[in-house]
Amino acid sequence: MRTVEWDNGGVKMIDQRSLPWTLEFARLETAEAVAESIQNMTVRGAPAIGAAAAFGMALAARNSPADSIEQLIRDLRLSAETLKAARPTAVNLAWAVDKLLAIATSGEFKRVDDLRDVLLTAAQQIADEDVAINSRMGRHGARLIDEGATILHHCNTGSLATVDYGTALGVVRAAFEQGKGIHVLLDETRPRLQGSRLSAWELDQQGISYDIIPDTAAGYYMSKGEIDIVLVGADRVAANGDFANKIGTYQLAIMAAAHAIPFYTVAPTSTIDLSLCSGAEIPIEERAPDEVTTPYGNPIVPPHFKARNPAFDITPHRYLSGIVTENGIARPPFDTNLRRAVAGDQL
Amino acid sequence: MRTVEWDNGGVKMIDQRSLPWTLEFARLETAEAVAESIQNMTVRGAPAIGAAAAFGMALAARNSPADSIEQLIRDLRLSAETLKAARPTAVNLAWAVDKLLAIATSGEFKRVDDLRDVLLTAAQQIADEDVAINSRMGRHGARLIDEGATILHHCNTGSLATVDYGTALGVVRAAFEQGKGIHVLLDETRPRLQGSRLSAWELDQQGISYDIIPDTAAGYYMSKGEIDIVLVGADRVAANGDFANKIGTYQLAIMAAAHAIPFYTVAPTSTIDLSLCSGAEIPIEERAPDEVTTPYGNPIVPPHFKARNPAFDITPHRYLSGIVTENGIARPPFDTNLRRAVAGDQL
Repeated sequence: MRTVEWDNGGVKMIDQRSLPWTLEFARLETAEAVAESIQNMTVRGAPAIGAAAAFGMALAARNSPADSIEQLIRDLRLSAETLKAARPTAVNLAWAVDKLLAIATSGEFKRVDDLRDVLLTAAQQIADEDVAINSRMGRHGARLIDEGATILHHCNTGSLATVDYGTALGVVRAAFEQGKGIHVLLDETRPRLQGSRLSAWELDQQGISYDIIPDTAAGYYMSKGEIDIVLVGADRVAANGDFANKIGTYQLAIMAAAHAIPFYTVAPTSTIDLSLCSGAEIPIEERAPDEVTTPYGNPIVPPHFKARNPAFDITPHRYLSGIVTENGIARPPFDTNLRRAVAGDQL
Repeated sequence: MRTVEWDNGGVKMIDQRSLPWTLEFARLETAEAVAESIQNMTVRGAPAIGAAAAFGMALAARNSPADSIEQLIRDLRLSAETLKAARPTAVNLAWAVDKLLAIATSGEFKRVDDLRDVLLTAAQQIADEDVAINSRMGRHGARLIDEGATILHHCNTGSLATVDYGTALGVVRAAFEQGKGIHVLLDETRPRLQGSRLSAWELDQQGISYDIIPDTAAGYYMSKGEIDIVLVGADRVAANGDFANKIGTYQLAIMAAAHAIPFYTVAPTSTIDLSLCSGAEIPIEERAPDEVTTPYGNPIVPPHFKARNPAFDITPHRYLSGIVTENGIARPPFDTNLRRAVAGDQL
């Protein structure tokens, strides 16, 4: 079962908003519907929305009435803008969309139907490669996990955040599959509770030992010496190693440093944006306050109470022990080592 | 309107579990019922539970069938144990109970009805003094708040956490009453959401500008330079200045230090426990996991999902800029200055 996949002329995806209660699927037939599914978090997780957006481009090509390559490219550009605007922080979305747009504009294809086929194949390839890449990151990252380790984890970075297997939780899964006795403390990750609702659902199914903790308790467990390593995902990594991830990541990094606990992000090279010198250039999405005040339709305060809801934060690279990529673990100095990882060097 | 007060043979208190939706009151007529109201958080906040426990002792004296002082003391000792066991971390509870027990065992009173009257008067005095003390803390603490300041606050430390006026939120209120233009960022404070449900309710009523933020966003707003000072309460302060407070306080202290933001606790001297050398000796209450998984009866995950729920954490004194008491602001070295504050010296 994949989080996102092509399904006979449409995109089928797990509706993550209904978990952990029911496993429901959405099926989308237009690029606009895919963009909306990304915006409303039917699908979420940087690699998963990258794959969803690639399929969205394939849908745009399929649905376009164009009978010339030029017309098809015009339609694709419009859909590309819609898809990229759905969520601004994660770069995998733009990366996947631009990858398909580059194929369309390469001049290599002369017949519109050929281009339609090629774009679908390319989207399928992005999805397939994501699974393979996660498996490689898991293998590299599992070396960081000692027998008996307790791992602190934020948000959801498992199968659901990717096409399959996961990034940071993929490392956890790889360590578990190697037979290591491990325990995971899952930050519940307010406001959307991806830790409680999604990560706990995954670990529960996989039989991996875990406890959900309130986001307020992470520092407490660090101070008790109960946490051996912190693993998180990333929505975008700048050339210097600064990275954007789910709100709350930055403060975990500060706490880990204060307790001398190793802190790693697990991110495929498609998440690395070498065009940005530092994290200061990464746009931060602010979402509606009712995600804070009325989580999943249950109001915790009256509607006129005021709240703010930044969805991501930036962690400076100085807090990072390393970045686990599919090409190995990048360590400082990140500016040179991330370039090598993106170029395909094995680190 | 007081959070806790004597009401014609019973203790009347705001039922804090029904806020911010409805303002309901509970009326309790036995020490056991008061102990239960503390345990189930009908009443919460270190000074408020101190006053509630004092009234609980007055109820125990009133309800005892004793016709000798010795018998009355035996009954009072039993009720004292029940009350003190209700919640282990906050010291005001034990402080208030022991204060009334000391009166009972002083040998000063020969007639049981006299002792009953004296204990009620003493409980009433603890409640009245709490209001006066909070007002003095507010005045001392308001000097720390500059015009235009944004204050980060955790949990609830307002009128509801005390008999009236508040500790850390009392400082906010005093600054507001002095006409300072201020804004407060309220950590929602999972799992029980005292920030969203109680502090926002109070500030909304008082017309003080605020935003609720998820606990995950505190570090983000610090990194943006939006926070000028952090103010929190305390459930117990050790002789060296280490203090216990609501889970999540410790990590705020680490973050504040990382951003060079002043970090203060506001605590009456009744919260200072000179019998403990350091915070390591303060017991930490662990509460039921369903407060995390099923907040206020709304399940966010299936019942078999595992969670942990430590209610407090310890912040080492090295992170503290100062401790605002009713006798002035104690600054390092805390070991000498806290002794002076407790002795009644004006700092």
